[in-house]
Amino acid sequence: MWDVQSAQGRPVICCEGMANTIRASVVQAATAAYSLSDTLDKLERLTRLAKERDGAQLAVFPEAFIGGYPKMSTFGIVVGDRRPEGRDEFVRYAKAAIEIPSPAIERIEQISKDTNVFLVVGVIERDNGTLYCTVVFVDPEQGYAGKHRKLVPTAMERVIWGQGDGSTLPVLTKTFENPSAPGTTVQTKLSATICWENYMPLLRTYYYSQGTQIYCAPTVDARPAWQHTMTHIALEGRCFVLSACQFSQEKDYPPDHAVADANARDPNNVMIAGGSVIISPLGKVLAGPLLDGEGVLTAELDLDDVLRGKFDLDVTGHYARNDVFEFKLREPVGPGSR
Amino acid sequence: MWDVQSAQGRPVICCEGMANTIRASVVQAATAAYSLSDTLDKLERLTRLAKERDGAQLAVFPEAFIGGYPKMSTFGIVVGDRRPEGRDEFVRYAKAAIEIPSPAIERIEQISKDTNVFLVVGVIERDNGTLYCTVVFVDPEQGYAGKHRKLVPTAMERVIWGQGDGSTLPVLTKTFENPSAPGTTVQTKLSATICWENYMPLLRTYYYSQGTQIYCAPTVDARPAWQHTMTHIALEGRCFVLSACQFSQEKDYPPDHAVADANARDPNNVMIAGGSVIISPLGKVLAGPLLDGEGVLTAELDLDDVLRGKFDLDVTGHYARNDVFEFKLREPVGPGSR
Amino acid sequence: MWDVQSAQGRPVICCEGMANTIRASVVQAATAAYSLSDTLDKLERLTRLAKERDGAQLAVFPEAFIGGYPKMSTFGIVVGDRRPEGRDEFVRYAKAAIEIPSPAIERIEQISKDTNVFLVVGVIERDNGTLYCTVVFVDPEQGYAGKHRKLVPTAMERVIWGQGDGSTLPVLTKTFENPSAPGTTVQTKLSATICWENYMPLLRTYYYSQGTQIYCAPTVDARPAWQHTMTHIALEGRCFVLSACQFSQEKDYPPDHAVADANARDPNNVMIAGGSVIISPLGKVLAGPLLDGEGVLTAELDLDDVLRGKFDLDVTGHYARNDVFEFKLREPVGPGSR
Amino acid sequence: MWDVQSAQGRPVICCEGMANTIRASVVQAATAAYSLSDTLDKLERLTRLAKERDGAQLAVFPEAFIGGYPKMSTFGIVVGDRRPEGRDEFVRYAKAAIEIPSPAIERIEQISKDTNVFLVVGVIERDNGTLYCTVVFVDPEQGYAGKHRKLVPTAMERVIWGQGDGSTLPVLTKTFENPSAPGTTVQTKLSATICWENYMPLLRTYYYSQGTQIYCAPTVDARPAWQHTMTHIALEGRCFVLSACQFSQEKDYPPDHAVADANARDPNNVMIAGGSVIISPLGKVLAGPLLDGEGVLTAELDLDDVLRGKFDLDVTGHYARNDVFEFKLREPVGPGSR
Amino acid sequence: MWDVQSAQGRPVICCEGMANTIRASVVQAATAAYSLSDTLDKLERLTRLAKERDGAQLAVFPEAFIGGYPKMSTFGIVVGDRRPEGRDEFVRYAKAAIEIPSPAIERIEQISKDTNVFLVVGVIERDNGTLYCTVVFVDPEQGYAGKHRKLVPTAMERVIWGQGDGSTLPVLTKTFENPSAPGTTVQTKLSATICWENYMPLLRTYYYSQGTQIYCAPTVDARPAWQHTMTHIALEGRCFVLSACQFSQEKDYPPDHAVADANARDPNNVMIAGGSVIISPLGKVLAGPLLDGEGVLTAELDLDDVLRGKFDLDVTGHYARNDVFEFKLREPVGPGSR
Amino acid sequence: MWDVQSAQGRPVICCEGMANTIRASVVQAATAAYSLSDTLDKLERLTRLAKERDGAQLAVFPEAFIGGYPKMSTFGIVVGDRRPEGRDEFVRYAKAAIEIPSPAIERIEQISKDTNVFLVVGVIERDNGTLYCTVVFVDPEQGYAGKHRKLVPTAMERVIWGQGDGSTLPVLTKTFENPSAPGTTVQTKLSATICWENYMPLLRTYYYSQGTQIYCAPTVDARPAWQHTMTHIALEGRCFVLSACQFSQEKDYPPDHAVADANARDPNNVMIAGGSVIISPLGKVLAGPLLDGEGVLTAELDLDDVLRGKFDLDVTGHYARNDVFEFKLREPVGPGSR
Repeated sequence: MWDVQSAQGRPVICCEGMANTIRASVVQAATAAYSLSDTLDKLERLTRLAKERDGAQLAVFPEAFIGGYPKMSTFGIVVGDRRPEGRDEFVRYAKAAIEIPSPAIERIEQISKDTNVFLVVGVIERDNGTLYCTVVFVDPEQGYAGKHRKLVPTAMERVIWGQGDGSTLPVLTKTFENPSAPGTTVQTKLSATICWENYMPLLRTYYYSQGTQIYCAPTVDARPAWQHTMTHIALEGRCFVLSACQFSQEKDYPPDHAVADANARDPNNVMIAGGSVIISPLGKVLAGPLLDGEGVLTAELDLDDVLRGKFDLDVTGHYARNDVFEFKLREPVGPGSR
Repeated sequence: MWDVQSAQGRPVICCEGMANTIRASVVQAATAAYSLSDTLDKLERLTRLAKERDGAQLAVFPEAFIGGYPKMSTFGIVVGDRRPEGRDEFVRYAKAAIEIPSPAIERIEQISKDTNVFLVVGVIERDNGTLYCTVVFVDPEQGYAGKHRKLVPTAMERVIWGQGDGSTLPVLTKTFENPSAPGTTVQTKLSATICWENYMPLLRTYYYSQGTQIYCAPTVDARPAWQHTMTHIALEGRCFVLSACQFSQEKDYPPDHAVADANARDPNNVMIAGGSVIISPLGKVLAGPLLDGEGVLTAELDLDDVLRGKFDLDVTGHYARNDVFEFKLREPVGPGSR
Repeated sequence: MWDVQSAQGRPVICCEGMANTIRASVVQAATAAYSLSDTLDKLERLTRLAKERDGAQLAVFPEAFIGGYPKMSTFGIVVGDRRPEGRDEFVRYAKAAIEIPSPAIERIEQISKDTNVFLVVGVIERDNGTLYCTVVFVDPEQGYAGKHRKLVPTAMERVIWGQGDGSTLPVLTKTFENPSAPGTTVQTKLSATICWENYMPLLRTYYYSQGTQIYCAPTVDARPAWQHTMTHIALEGRCFVLSACQFSQEKDYPPDHAVADANARDPNNVMIAGGSVIISPLGKVLAGPLLDGEGVLTAELDLDDVLRGKFDLDVTGHYARNDVFEFKLREPVGPGSR
Repeated sequence: MWDVQSAQGRPVICCEGMANTIRASVVQAATAAYSLSDTLDKLERLTRLAKERDGAQLAVFPEAFIGGYPKMSTFGIVVGDRRPEGRDEFVRYAKAAIEIPSPAIERIEQISKDTNVFLVVGVIERDNGTLYCTVVFVDPEQGYAGKHRKLVPTAMERVIWGQGDGSTLPVLTKTFENPSAPGTTVQTKLSATICWENYMPLLRTYYYSQGTQIYCAPTVDARPAWQHTMTHIALEGRCFVLSACQFSQEKDYPPDHAVADANARDPNNVMIAGGSVIISPLGKVLAGPLLDGEGVLTAELDLDDVLRGKFDLDVTGHYARNDVFEFKLREPVGPGSR
Repeated sequence: MWDVQSAQGRPVICCEGMANTIRASVVQAATAAYSLSDTLDKLERLTRLAKERDGAQLAVFPEAFIGGYPKMSTFGIVVGDRRPEGRDEFVRYAKAAIEIPSPAIERIEQISKDTNVFLVVGVIERDNGTLYCTVVFVDPEQGYAGKHRKLVPTAMERVIWGQGDGSTLPVLTKTFENPSAPGTTVQTKLSATICWENYMPLLRTYYYSQGTQIYCAPTVDARPAWQHTMTHIALEGRCFVLSACQFSQEKDYPPDHAVADANARDPNNVMIAGGSVIISPLGKVLAGPLLDGEGVLTAELDLDDVLRGKFDLDVTGHYARNDVFEFKLREPVGPGSR
Repeated sequence: MWDVQSAQGRPVICCEGMANTIRASVVQAATAAYSLSDTLDKLERLTRLAKERDGAQLAVFPEAFIGGYPKMSTFGIVVGDRRPEGRDEFVRYAKAAIEIPSPAIERIEQISKDTNVFLVVGVIERDNGTLYCTVVFVDPEQGYAGKHRKLVPTAMERVIWGQGDGSTLPVLTKTFENPSAPGTTVQTKLSATICWENYMPLLRTYYYSQGTQIYCAPTVDARPAWQHTMTHIALEGRCFVLSACQFSQEKDYPPDHAVADANARDPNNVMIAGGSVIISPLGKVLAGPLLDGEGVLTAELDLDDVLRGKFDLDVTGHYARNDVFEFKLREPVGPGSR
């Protein structure tokens, strides 16, 4: 039997012959359209389902789950012009967003505490006059534990969301109970990357360098090509990839919301088609992709697979070339930095 | 109906279909020449007018309203020489100034409490041997709530006033009752910028970054060009601009006071021509400019206009480039810091 | 009579009684719709007009004059989706853009050389897969002399243009012949700020700090409120402001281009309404605003007015508070930096 | 019709309605075991096939095609020990490698010239006492045009190959005739990334930043997971990915070469299983994957697809955050740098 | 008698007629096979032996003493392939490694403190997914004082260990009691170079340039030729060389561990044959080489011999040619730098 | 059979099963005391011996073989004073030195041509008023082929010899006939390092980086410790080391020359004790050390041993860390540069 050792802020590697696992879920669901309280209720219901049915210790919710993803909207914007009703649509959307801290955050803290599930939740965050596409991390014991703001919104998102910066790229260390060996614990590191941020190689490199093992990828990208990227990232980073996508239909939006085809409105038309998935560090799909509706996927993650994978590929360790490529995070400097 | 939420130190965004407003006034008036008690009486009288006639919840008074603006004086100074009578003139001016705290401040607190009007008042502040061009904030409930000292006096002002520093740049949060929805409240943030400080882009940037929504601009600048700058600031900062200017005539000064043309003294000659104004975050003039005498201007401010404006311009949020421009407030360090 | 002094890279202050002037034009015109060669011909024609009619030594052309401003277009983008025809529209738009260097730049160099007019021209620049809203500076003697890329595109522009950075913020020094004193020359500094960049206080501060005297503001913002901002900037920066706006009608765009009201297409409908203007450092409007069509405005700029204005306001000099506000340009670090 | 423009070292974007294409092949083949002249003959034969059958203008050969990939060898190495026969195996392997320049390079130049095919060929390069896994670029007109040395060998490769450095990361510009519009040409940029280098996010980022459009990926990785990574890179980099893998059987190696199972030697046993593929910038598989033997895959590449893809994702352009992530290539300094 | 002088961070040169000595040991021993606690116990036992029997003040342990040197293992790797059981072997090996800091480091600190012996110990260090062959320096008073990671692993080691960089090349200053003159102290500088790093002339040059006097060389190289290199280095660097090698037999490894000849397993077969040695700056062997088993060698080091040697050879001082050879350490730049 | 290839300036690696060898000698002999012609005669005699007896193709003569090594002399120098007879002694020594070119060089060229032996000869070179300790390379076909001047004279040598610089560090490429395969040739690289220059790690590194395979080490260091250094260099550089030392007795010097013990002069007293040796790249002694008199040692050098050795150690190739250590030769700049 091997010696057990623990260290400050490093994963605990446990006993020979014993798996070091945690059970993790990705939640595929739509925002309860623009209603914060309904959406928080839905978050609680789905968290309880993940916990009670699957034994989840960690649950990842999609991008913009709280606050909503206004798919197909234009906010009255064309090049060079903004219509007044677009401003009102923005005010409405901004009011559906949450602040940090706020009662909404307190409610999520309570859900996490009650269920003992660590939550990773996509939200729309309001900070003064700017909205951000943010992920919040909520710990059952410590409550709110950090946030990540999307660095580069995609296409039309750029007119409704601001850009995050280097101050909100946390990689959190979390100790979970080890379901494979009752009475022992496992320590792991997790982070979040939102939607097309997953195409940013420097952002991924930064997270890998900080030791992320549970790579959460909340998204609304439901294209089939997304699966290639998720598998690639698992292989490249030698980490577990947990991608949670929204599955939404027209009925999940207000009746007057933009849709793909205004002449063929149908409450059952799919707006965002899902594709949530869990993949291991060697590229094996452990659960999903879930394609046909809302749902919760759960998998048991053997954290030793990270080491098995890094044996021959550790892109910020033995496979890095710091001599050839200088790479460094820059903290922002400015009155708006936080 | 949208969910209502409140948060620590952040504006409350209220209910759909309901405006989130406050009623605010700018007071255009002259100092009662070098008489502190007369000027305090005048402050009380005008505050009551704003309250009773217009329902004001907030009132802004001009630069140097208390203590006076010694327009046309030279204080006996030429390059390389000061005449003794100039020193005596300075002593007289210094005695007309107030200290913080002092009975004068207590009187203003009492006026604010009695009328339930939040006051933003330009004063000449005496601190040992130096005078400052200061604005004091006085809250009906908490009394004296902070002060801002002008950072850079202009031209000849530099021989009678000292410079403020980074310790007196408050942006205050204030909760008002919402006149558009009795029983509810609105929270907002306000700050003050004096006269040509309004031409300092870094000072404005700092205030914007702190979330100021009610941008108070006490002044004695009565040039027509002032209006361009006030409108620009409203647009640039997506904030309400409340500019209060003195309107003074020769009769408002002591008989021996310097005037524009000593050979054509006339009690009705205009010394400072006013131009007080209230402008919305999208650049619309809500009241004023008032050009022909003393008076009180009042407007209802729909605070949601701040968000409407920030939709496409938030110069310290989604429209900032902290990567390109490092910008930071420096708190003063020294025995004189406060 | 004062001594004449010259200095490295500093304006020459010339002889008493002699004005130090240059003649400068702003050109208000539309892109010849998506045709590079037509637009270059138009640039040549208008430059010759400015030269021959008005004696211009410097001419400023509007934002996106070369490459075009696709007003009212949506590029097939809604939140969360891009239609294939939008990609093709982008390819078409990208092909209308120019590279630096390129034959188009060479043509502009030739026009500048032939007319002896220093040109400041808004262009759409293509660099690999990203377009930038850029201004190029072209000198009659040296040819291409630098460029500025817009730092923050506004609203829908964010989906078609990338962001500039700290490497393209030139303030150029240029020596012109002095039309007021034949045989003498005047040296001045000039820079460019595009459209809503003019609302960025830190960008303006940077330019002021580098000594800009001829502040060029190519734009497509034709709102009346623009005039307030232009006047404010002249006053704040104590510089000449030369704002060149497009004036375009539906006939200036391809027949299938988006318009404000697709049901009321009319070749004469105004798309961008102009408003070009030239303002002095003390806020005096020297020419314009031009509101009713294309045209060229010219004014004689007395460069000594810059000093006259800085006498009492120099916001990055005697009116700055570097002790209170730290402010610094950050050069980019990256493979894409240039 | 759009104006045609060319520029120094930039892609030419051609005429409206005309496709800008080139025809490119990936060659899937085994080294003619350790025989340099046989392998060069094979290179010539396959190049002629690509040219004559498919009209190829560019052909990519697999990793180590010249020099060979000694799969399953151990070179007599265990941790802490090297056996003498391993040294002899290394000498034999080193002698099968080529130098640059050398007659072997001259032969490749001749093949390229004779066929008018631009060649990208994986070779084992010998430089003094160290071998490198290298790709050489050979132009029909200019001959040898550059090389790339693998930066990080994988696992056991580390005992037979050295590491490349920042001096051998070329992105070459090449002008081809445009088969879609006879008489016109297209300019493009290409680079090479070998095997698991494709998992190095900083290397890829560097290539993207230099504008690579034809991303060549010679490899010997024949795992199915490779396809995910190839598709991801096409999407991430908005470039054409041309992956050429060896397909080798035991008969392609000397009779005494190591094999997977020494007890079941069979000349037809697969050693490296192929999987060569060509993918478009939007992730569409244009040819392959080829799985069942040697062969040549060819596709017509519409270079405008690069722009179509960069419309919404340009990870070193409008989708970069140079403010947040500092990233720079470091040129080596040392006597061995070249 | 000479004046005694002390200097910041410089050796104290003491009194005439008095030697400036320290007593130093090299420990020749095997890892207690893959058991961290057993190995730590052995470290304590051997440290106490060095202290109590020989009066050691400094003790050097072999390369990989903690964590083990998996001699003869292949980790299931051949060129182009990794077998799954190799990954598991790596996980087992990784678990036997230690982190810094960790309880294992704390235990070594305690041993150092209890015995008052400065320890230089070869360890296998785990940092996220990469292992390093590291030497830790542990001070009786300050505890953990630094580490050196091997820069270039040799041959098969390259598949299990990463590369160190310029951030872990410490040369430590340490003050010891002077056993030759009770009540006085001597100050010296020490560093560590692992196994074939000793063949890296630039690494040695760097250490010489930093003033190393006690050159520790933990190793597992037991070839007779090693003695030549150790003597050469003492002469070249004018330093004391303390080489500590493992002496291990098959019985020191787990029963299933790879051996030289699997058909002739014998618990007494030698795996690593020792050869630990202590050599003076003028090339005199002070103790060893120890060839026939585990053991502790101790010598009294007269630190003045360093100066005696540098009289006629100081390769980074009077014998350097900085005009001819530029040489500089490069600190790494990257998120993984520490 | 392997393909044979040649390349510009690179070693030819020849045919399988055929050794690639050359026969090389080191000559151990004393200068014929201060007689140039006698010494040149001796050089011819010993060269013919090497050729005729041993088949030598290359012969290395000791340091200062021509011109002499004035062992035990002081040249009348003490600190702060020089005696006149020392000056005379220097004149005598300088006259025994040779210039390049000169009749002496022509004589050596003739010997080389006549015998077809490549010569590496230690000489004292006179260049105006300075003497250098130099090695000349003389080719049978091309004649004088280059020289190396000692970079750092040792101790008392510093008062009679100047310092060489970066302009005289040649690594020469030479093609020899291959005695193991008549009719074929082998190409190799050779350089020279004099006496304690062999302790200069940066000089050795430079030579290794240039590909030296025949490392010639003319010397007068006859200490036993020299053997350790020669073996180390062979191992470190993976090159053949050919060390040629003088063997001299008192009778080889003028009668009045300084000796170790002036009271015990004896013509047979040994002045320099020899120790010439030839060592292979893996550290095997191929010939010598020769300790008891003058003589010629010859060995057959299998040049493939260089590759065998570099398989696991190439200190300027796969075992270098150019990222960590910047290292570069500086060519001299100045009127004296050559």
